[in-house]
Amino acid sequence: MKLSREKLAYIAGFLDGDGSIYVKLKPNSTYRYRFQVSPAIVFFQSQKEKDHLEWLRKIIRKGYLRQRNDGVVEYIIGDMKSIKELLQNLLPYLKLKKIQAQLMLEIIERKKQVKSPKEFIKLAEKIDLFQKINYSKKRIQNSIVVKKVLEKEGLLAP
Amino acid sequence: MKLSREKLAYIAGFLDGDGSIYVKLKPNSTYRYRFQVSPAIVFFQSQKEKDHLEWLRKIIRKGYLRQRNDGVVEYIIGDMKSIKELLQNLLPYLKLKKIQAQLMLEIIERKKQVKSPKEFIKLAEKIDLFQKINYSKKRIQNSIVVKKVLEKEGLLAP
Repeated sequence: MKLSREKLAYIAGFLDGDGSIYVKLKPNSTYRYRFQVSPAIVFFQSQKEKDHLEWLRKIIRKGYLRQRNDGVVEYIIGDMKSIKELLQNLLPYLKLKKIQAQLMLEIIERKKQVKSPKEFIKLAEKIDLFQKINYSKKRIQNSIVVKKVLEKEGLLAP
Repeated sequence: MKLSREKLAYIAGFLDGDGSIYVKLKPNSTYRYRFQVSPAIVFFQSQKEKDHLEWLRKIIRKGYLRQRNDGVVEYIIGDMKSIKELLQNLLPYLKLKKIQAQLMLEIIERKKQVKSPKEFIKLAEKIDLFQKINYSKKRIQNSIVVKKVLEKEGLLAP
């Protein structure tokens, strides 16, 4: 990623103001641990500011634009390699979303090392923590759901 | 204003994502042309992100924080000198709100030169244009209201 420091600082400011960093656990029976870890960095704008998101995508050179039915345009970066590279570059400039960025990098790193259902539950707990930071008032308990599913499927001792 | 290029780029990105640049005409009979030109740069955050706005205010060293009743915290820069200085510094880095920033600087400059009711109406037309950029669908006509008031008060020939 060859972006100037000013460009990186601008993107960090824009992400702090307008963007979102999140990670979801999606149920998917074809996955080894029955859930897909689905991280994303998303920027939102109204239709009339679509050009701005196109410009961002062009300089970041990752991700894609999606037109929602409600008129909002999303610029989504959803693959782990791109997210990791972008966040590592933005980290020195991020303020509001620095904690999310650090935790996301930790989750991406930890995911690579998961070798057992137990370790996957530890990962799910990190994701709980992540979601708690994003939605301060909600009680998040992905990890408990994951545990139950893995127990039910006989992948984990109750 | 002694801010590094990275800081300015960050602030520009944050303003593009989260902030607002606007100018209002407020009826005020104590003013020469019966309206006060009231410009502002505002950043909005929820209560839990108040620290971030405090940090911004500390580095920009202008404006003040205001706690709204609905839980939103506003960081407002409302005096023309500060607005002018900040926007001149941000201009090279702004993207989405560059047009608003340029037009705001033009309005601030033009306001100094107003010497007659007619010139004030020209200024009000610039403000119409500004508001049209911010709220694309609304029909804005400050200048027509200003004209009527100035005519009614005998400051301008009908």
